[in-house]
Amino acid sequence: MPLPLSADLSSRHTRVRRTLDVLNLDALVITNTTNIRYLSNHAGSAGILVVTADAMHLLIDFRYEEAARTLQASSSACPSLRTWPVPASYDEALLSCLTEIGATRVGFEAAHVTVARHDWLVRSAAARGQGMTFRSTERVVEALRVVKDAAETAMLRESAGRLTKVASTAVRAVRAGVTERAVAAVIEAAMREAGYERQAFDTIVASGPNAALPHYRAGDRILEAGDVVVLDFGGVLDGYCCDLTRTVSVGTPTADALRVHQAVRDAQQAAIAAVRPGVAASAVDAAARTVLEARGLGQAFGHGTGHGLGLDVHEEPRVTRPQPDVQPTLLEAGMVFTVEPGAYLPGWGGVRIEDDVLVTENGCEVLTSVPYDLLPLTH
Amino acid sequence: MPLPLSADLSSRHTRVRRTLDVLNLDALVITNTTNIRYLSNHAGSAGILVVTADAMHLLIDFRYEEAARTLQASSSACPSLRTWPVPASYDEALLSCLTEIGATRVGFEAAHVTVARHDWLVRSAAARGQGMTFRSTERVVEALRVVKDAAETAMLRESAGRLTKVASTAVRAVRAGVTERAVAAVIEAAMREAGYERQAFDTIVASGPNAALPHYRAGDRILEAGDVVVLDFGGVLDGYCCDLTRTVSVGTPTADALRVHQAVRDAQQAAIAAVRPGVAASAVDAAARTVLEARGLGQAFGHGTGHGLGLDVHEEPRVTRPQPDVQPTLLEAGMVFTVEPGAYLPGWGGVRIEDDVLVTENGCEVLTSVPYDLLPLTH
Repeated sequence: MPLPLSADLSSRHTRVRRTLDVLNLDALVITNTTNIRYLSNHAGSAGILVVTADAMHLLIDFRYEEAARTLQASSSACPSLRTWPVPASYDEALLSCLTEIGATRVGFEAAHVTVARHDWLVRSAAARGQGMTFRSTERVVEALRVVKDAAETAMLRESAGRLTKVASTAVRAVRAGVTERAVAAVIEAAMREAGYERQAFDTIVASGPNAALPHYRAGDRILEAGDVVVLDFGGVLDGYCCDLTRTVSVGTPTADALRVHQAVRDAQQAAIAAVRPGVAASAVDAAARTVLEARGLGQAFGHGTGHGLGLDVHEEPRVTRPQPDVQPTLLEAGMVFTVEPGAYLPGWGGVRIEDDVLVTENGCEVLTSVPYDLLPLTH
Repeated sequence: MPLPLSADLSSRHTRVRRTLDVLNLDALVITNTTNIRYLSNHAGSAGILVVTADAMHLLIDFRYEEAARTLQASSSACPSLRTWPVPASYDEALLSCLTEIGATRVGFEAAHVTVARHDWLVRSAAARGQGMTFRSTERVVEALRVVKDAAETAMLRESAGRLTKVASTAVRAVRAGVTERAVAAVIEAAMREAGYERQAFDTIVASGPNAALPHYRAGDRILEAGDVVVLDFGGVLDGYCCDLTRTVSVGTPTADALRVHQAVRDAQQAAIAAVRPGVAASAVDAAARTVLEARGLGQAFGHGTGHGLGLDVHEEPRVTRPQPDVQPTLLEAGMVFTVEPGAYLPGWGGVRIEDDVLVTENGCEVLTSVPYDLLPLTH
């Protein structure tokens, strides 16, 4: 897989620098590591990126210096990058960097910087007496990330596409007599085999009554004939996440299982059919919800219909009911998100079906390609 | 494995409530999910816990309600728990809870609450006009967590102990012709097999020159005869993390490999020998560093000697050089941490050796039990 090239980073830089102007900032301090990766390709779990009009200042400690050198020598090099070593404290190094480059109007990510860190920076900058001020910013890089560029779309398509084979292995592992954990182990081995560098989240194998718990993971319960089993898993490929859920039965499904599964499947199809540019994300949620309400399962669907996918497994756009005091999100071509309605009936179990979609000019492309059968044909 | 019982939670509650008095607070808002788990046994990825003198108020959304009911019916039930449903926004629900219980002096976790969240709470509380004030607190629950209680020690011993078998499988998977990723897959399957609910962190298999990158993970490099390979992995058992590193060679080790490996092993032994109550954590770091400096490898050891282990894979105590402006940490019986010196030589590779130790009344107990051989006897 080609990594995003420097050209793609340049265009991201142009867009983030436009924000510096709009917000009247000398520098924007990026501490969210996912945002750092988006702007620089540097994927360390620590680091600070300081964006200015003419440079990207990357503060990194000893552990990442060699990785940074290697990356800068490749076709994924970050344009206008300057690296700053961090001998001890990141926050000390940040203040030194800001002082040296002469930044006084400094934006920071208010949704990521903690109160403790902010207080320290304000106090320490004041002690230096150079008139540095810190200003809250919200969603600057997240707003750029919500619409994917060409390199990202290609990677997300590849990431989601590789789930086809994983799902086939997963479904074959579901049989009476094995534990949920054993099925999870098979899924995770298949994800490694498919080339994912890691899981996007803890694999869910929720069988029988456990399937009523939407965020149950995988335990020691042994699968039995007649169980309905929710399988929810995803991998990370060169940083990009995919996320899939299928619900299958162990042996012949009961009439209840068939009815709930069909309702969730119809809800999901209705939601996918509603996806196109200009539509509110909440309209996609409503499309799923309306179907489930009509089947008497409205109360059983307690979560949102989907979430954005990209470098984070949960990002914008949120596909939920309209939120009070929140500007509605209108879908745009290039957005990528999950469509995953479910129905959960305490004591009985649950069904969830999830695919990943890319909004296109005319509708959407479903990036995941896995059969929906409740009783898989492979049994 | 027995879960921690309600009696253990009671003692944690007594200690956290003492802090409410000392800090003159009506309520302490816990948003760090690990701290929530420590105080309530609730392990959801979302939730807020409000600690007051007579109750533990757990705010949870739909996804966790059934899990909470199940837990409250078990021997791990949280004493004095009251659950509050969160229909939409956690922050709205928090304000409603605080208003209903009449809390006005409200502490929050400054190292966890973001500036954006804090600003919203202050603004919204002011709009309600009830004189609610929010006060920064630091490390209240973390300070309790640093010394483990009996239930935790038992779980950490079990978690670390299960690595013996995993390591044996891991070492056998190291041979010429396989990729780093394939070795990682074997390790991860063995961790599942051993009963861990998930990995504590991304498995590291760093071979040849990649071993010079302390935070490299696992890639497509194919192992060759003469490689030195760093294997670093750990699992989570009922929430408790373990962390182990061994370095092995593919075929007969070179003289350089033997020399560096012996130096790191000696440094690690010196550090472990320095562990006992009353000693500064930095003295344990110094013990390792002194050995490596004497072998000309001081510059090659760029990270700290260890980190605490518990519900988080990186927690207090930090076993590092003395930090300016930071109160030194004196070791106490019940602390659990890693001892993991390393030496990294760019272009050549690296060696790291890591065990997990529990501070005891007289010294320490090494919780991990895995041979140290550079060329494993199983080859």
